[in-house]
Amino acid sequence: MPRRPTLEFWYEFASTYSYLAAMRIEALAEDAGVEVRWRPFLVGPIFAAQGWNSSPFNLYPAKGRHMWRDVEREAARLGLPPVKRPDPFPQNSLSATRAATYGMDHDWLVPFSKAVYEAEFAKGQSVAEPSAVVGLLNGLGLDGTVILKQAAAETNKGRLRVNGEEARSRGIFGAPTFLTGDGELFWGNDRLEQALAWAVGDRPGAMRE
Amino acid sequence: MPRRPTLEFWYEFASTYSYLAAMRIEALAEDAGVEVRWRPFLVGPIFAAQGWNSSPFNLYPAKGRHMWRDVEREAARLGLPPVKRPDPFPQNSLSATRAATYGMDHDWLVPFSKAVYEAEFAKGQSVAEPSAVVGLLNGLGLDGTVILKQAAAETNKGRLRVNGEEARSRGIFGAPTFLTGDGELFWGNDRLEQALAWAVGDRPGAMRE
Repeated sequence: MPRRPTLEFWYEFASTYSYLAAMRIEALAEDAGVEVRWRPFLVGPIFAAQGWNSSPFNLYPAKGRHMWRDVEREAARLGLPPVKRPDPFPQNSLSATRAATYGMDHDWLVPFSKAVYEAEFAKGQSVAEPSAVVGLLNGLGLDGTVILKQAAAETNKGRLRVNGEEARSRGIFGAPTFLTGDGELFWGNDRLEQALAWAVGDRPGAMRE
Repeated sequence: MPRRPTLEFWYEFASTYSYLAAMRIEALAEDAGVEVRWRPFLVGPIFAAQGWNSSPFNLYPAKGRHMWRDVEREAARLGLPPVKRPDPFPQNSLSATRAATYGMDHDWLVPFSKAVYEAEFAKGQSVAEPSAVVGLLNGLGLDGTVILKQAAAETNKGRLRVNGEEARSRGIFGAPTFLTGDGELFWGNDRLEQALAWAVGDRPGAMRE
């Protein structure tokens, strides 16, 4: 039997559009017959390398006003709960991303990632503090304290750094990003459908290359 | 008989995603029963106010690489010819925008605007020089030399400036932008469908406001 096509989903916990993608990728990928590999990463170092010390939605206020309104509209269109804004925005995502990086070898990565996003953008809660991350892990029936300790070990911190270097070297400049098995990069929640279509070989652009 | 709902289409001639929107907005608006008001403007002064002295796709190379690939894929998906890149990118759009601003009172605005985009992104031609703009106008059976002279008059240059101030004061930060009659702002070619739906009163987000 041929292997199912795969799609890498690179997501940042502080990112509103990563949230929208995270809440809908499973159903769409199931319908398309695509296996999703969830790839948590930190977009901060990539933004810093571009000279941004905060979210572009804070640095460019008109862009930020549109983003919040757009995410509100998109959440409604996608049938998600009304968006609540965490304070501050963006949330420091280091603890959650460390835990998720450790979770890449465990079957709780996806439910944990969705729990972080729901707390942050459907409930407007802070997810920055280690205690908040522990609480979310505990809520999944896991031992959050133990996991966060393992997530803070040097091995896992190194893996987080290596993932960030991989992101940059593969051309990632924002989140969410979808990468197909043949290296095709799609940026933004708006491109999820096209990325899935590409992954299964539906490629209008390829016909004339 | 009730007035047809309207949608303002703010576009910048140097913008690749404005090109994609320009080539498909007529058919989609016709299907939706929406009247489109074409609003040419210069995005350069708005970018300059944000501290950008060139296109963000040049300032941020990884973002730029994705944009060109994405526009290629999107053009294929939308059934448009393969995208050719004008050199340099972005093209100086002052002459074409002056002509289009003058054209806002004439019935050739839309065919002229589409002719500029096709020359620039389907043929990869320069549209920056006044002579190129004259040629495109002549190609539509108009007197390009006379039009460009009228477009360079102080009255028209003032109108172009006022349009730019209107864009900024209404929250526009990039192109293309769609504005509905009730002031709802949608940024980007990807939001054309949602903007049209909003214009005709199909507003999932409004139900819980």
